[in-house]
Amino acid sequence: ASTVAPAEGSVALAVVPGDGIGPEVTDEALKVLEVAAPAGVKFEKTRYDLGAERYLATHEVLPDSVLAEIRRHDAILLGAVGGKPNDPNLPPGILERGLLLRLRFELDHYVNLRPSRIYPGAVSPLSTEILGKGDVDFVVVREGTEGPYTGNGGALRTGTPAEVATEVSVNTAYGVERVIRDAFARAQRRPRKKLTLVHKTNVLVNAGSLWWRLFEEVAAEHPDVTTDYCHIDAVMIYLATDPQRFDVIVTDNLFGDIVTDLAAAITGGIGLAASGNVNPDRTTPSMFEPVHGSAPDIAGQLVADPTAAILSGALLLDHLGHPEAAARIEAAVIDDLAARTPGRQRSTPEVGDAIAARVTG
Amino acid sequence: ASTVAPAEGSVALAVVPGDGIGPEVTDEALKVLEVAAPAGVKFEKTRYDLGAERYLATHEVLPDSVLAEIRRHDAILLGAVGGKPNDPNLPPGILERGLLLRLRFELDHYVNLRPSRIYPGAVSPLSTEILGKGDVDFVVVREGTEGPYTGNGGALRTGTPAEVATEVSVNTAYGVERVIRDAFARAQRRPRKKLTLVHKTNVLVNAGSLWWRLFEEVAAEHPDVTTDYCHIDAVMIYLATDPQRFDVIVTDNLFGDIVTDLAAAITGGIGLAASGNVNPDRTTPSMFEPVHGSAPDIAGQLVADPTAAILSGALLLDHLGHPEAAARIEAAVIDDLAARTPGRQRSTPEVGDAIAARVTG
Ligand SMILES: CC(C)[C@H](C(=O)O)[C@@H](O)C(=O)O
Ligand SMILES: CC(C)[C@H](C(=O)O)[C@@H](O)C(=O)O
Repeated sequence: ASTVAPAEGSVALAVVPGDGIGPEVTDEALKVLEVAAPAGVKFEKTRYDLGAERYLATHEVLPDSVLAEIRRHDAILLGAVGGKPNDPNLPPGILERGLLLRLRFELDHYVNLRPSRIYPGAVSPLSTEILGKGDVDFVVVREGTEGPYTGNGGALRTGTPAEVATEVSVNTAYGVERVIRDAFARAQRRPRKKLTLVHKTNVLVNAGSLWWRLFEEVAAEHPDVTTDYCHIDAVMIYLATDPQRFDVIVTDNLFGDIVTDLAAAITGGIGLAASGNVNPDRTTPSMFEPVHGSAPDIAGQLVADPTAAILSGALLLDHLGHPEAAARIEAAVIDDLAARTPGRQRSTPEVGDAIAARVTG
Repeated sequence: ASTVAPAEGSVALAVVPGDGIGPEVTDEALKVLEVAAPAGVKFEKTRYDLGAERYLATHEVLPDSVLAEIRRHDAILLGAVGGKPNDPNLPPGILERGLLLRLRFELDHYVNLRPSRIYPGAVSPLSTEILGKGDVDFVVVREGTEGPYTGNGGALRTGTPAEVATEVSVNTAYGVERVIRDAFARAQRRPRKKLTLVHKTNVLVNAGSLWWRLFEEVAAEHPDVTTDYCHIDAVMIYLATDPQRFDVIVTDNLFGDIVTDLAAAITGGIGLAASGNVNPDRTTPSMFEPVHGSAPDIAGQLVADPTAAILSGALLLDHLGHPEAAARIEAAVIDDLAARTPGRQRSTPEVGDAIAARVTG
């Protein structure tokens, strides 16, 4: 959706490999990025050591000085962060809020982008009857800086039988309009040119009316885009029984969180799902990461599939104004997926090498 | 979860057939209820004309006098309400908030109960591989009187580019504890005795901490119940890929709305899904209804499947303290479903008659 000129020459890339399989899959994403980048684009990488390991060692999550440094980059590539499940030294939410959400909010990543596509060979949990209805290929544009994620709300009489706890979803015309505009621009660039607003306007009337009004207003400026509205609960049914109906979905931060995980599940698992936390104006670095976590149980064995990280690299290139290079990576991934032999497990670098070879070849 | 004595003798039943196919399926639910009710239980029915038709004719949604009358009943059976899609005379949300949600709040229906089971012959959108892992049979206990459904929040500078709209999720220890207790009691009565809390504690920290604390507190009193926690986004993945893992789920009002529609979808569609809006203390009448809508497009043709309404009748009997009668209805439905011939469409009364015959036979 950006009208910013393509990044050329030296591109400053902040790399946050993170924990568990994060570093392993990040290496492969970088490998493929390097070979896919257009002539003239050169990545100057700086590695930042953030995540569970750093927190456990130093109690630091994201020092202000590190954030200030990261901010001076053109883009961020993140592997995965997160420690062992139920580690008593790692309070739940500390990395999520202190690192992942803080980056989204500080860097104004108002577009959280999650393409959802059933690739060849991907194992969808949906029946052959549902899958037989046609290709599943949509993208969710999730608002990233507002809604119930703002940390508004509080608690009174905490820990007592009289406790009251609130969560406030904050929605501004400023924030809603810009993400809706981005979604329309993305819909316009796709063959089907269809955009679905997802909300719960029949219950959440204040926020719902704002989203609805701005959606209608921006729709009037885009007569070539077909528009549609679904309640979040109805989307559950459609994603399970008729995912083909979606092209681009725009929704709020929490509904987007929910919809994108279901979308990842039905398209064959979070093992393939890539995501971007994007500031389309490119006034701050956007961040690209696989949707999967750090999988500490398989870390260090080089058995993790780096495909989601590699596809996140494609989103990064697209965001920097290089859609052809991004398309080359995606095509290479599709070819690689189609050529996979069930039962034959390749190592993480083998998958990276194979995809890199298809990009160059 | 009720420790209230079974309803005997004359049971006052408020019947709200509603719109579209509502009256048709309600007739069949009543037919089956009558034959399934234990000897000594007699339903005294009063019909209330509420829904889209009444609103369009009189602009009344739920007059206070009608609510006062309904309140004096022992239970409510509702068909479905809702007019034609996009009827300009029927503003969106008016029936949802003015009738359905108002009844839940006024009658303190703090347990919104939605059993999810893949019945024989039901067409699930999940693959045979996923379904082959085992039976899917769980129940969602959704909080019904708090959360983001309270109508808290508001809007400032409405209609301008400076608009701010908020939605406040209100959670009280009082409200959260009672629904968690109900869920534990239900889990305790099931063979697997497993209860999963669903929330988003890593982001919604205030509400999340309250739910988490009370869940842990009540769990300590129920050592025979296995407990588990899932973020709402992870539940999306589990429901699509491993629904067998769930036994009882307890969650807040909005997450429950979302989870139950996905649950209905994966178990074979909302055509079979029943629900109860329950006050387990029986100090007010609880309301039972199929999850499906009024389907105005097929109304009047007697082709609607009354199974979900009939199963709602089973929930009603169970709530009134007659679990054996409820089980008889469910068993009759299962037999009827197993005996259905694909392609052979029976009329609404034929299905009702067949199930009623199996209950008595
Ligand atoms: C880790 C968590 C805070 C995050 C979110 O809720 O946004 C994650 O679920 C995601 O979707 O990126
Ligand atoms: C109609 C609507 C207000 C309602 C809800 O959101 O609770 C419905 O979706 C349901 O699940 O019963």
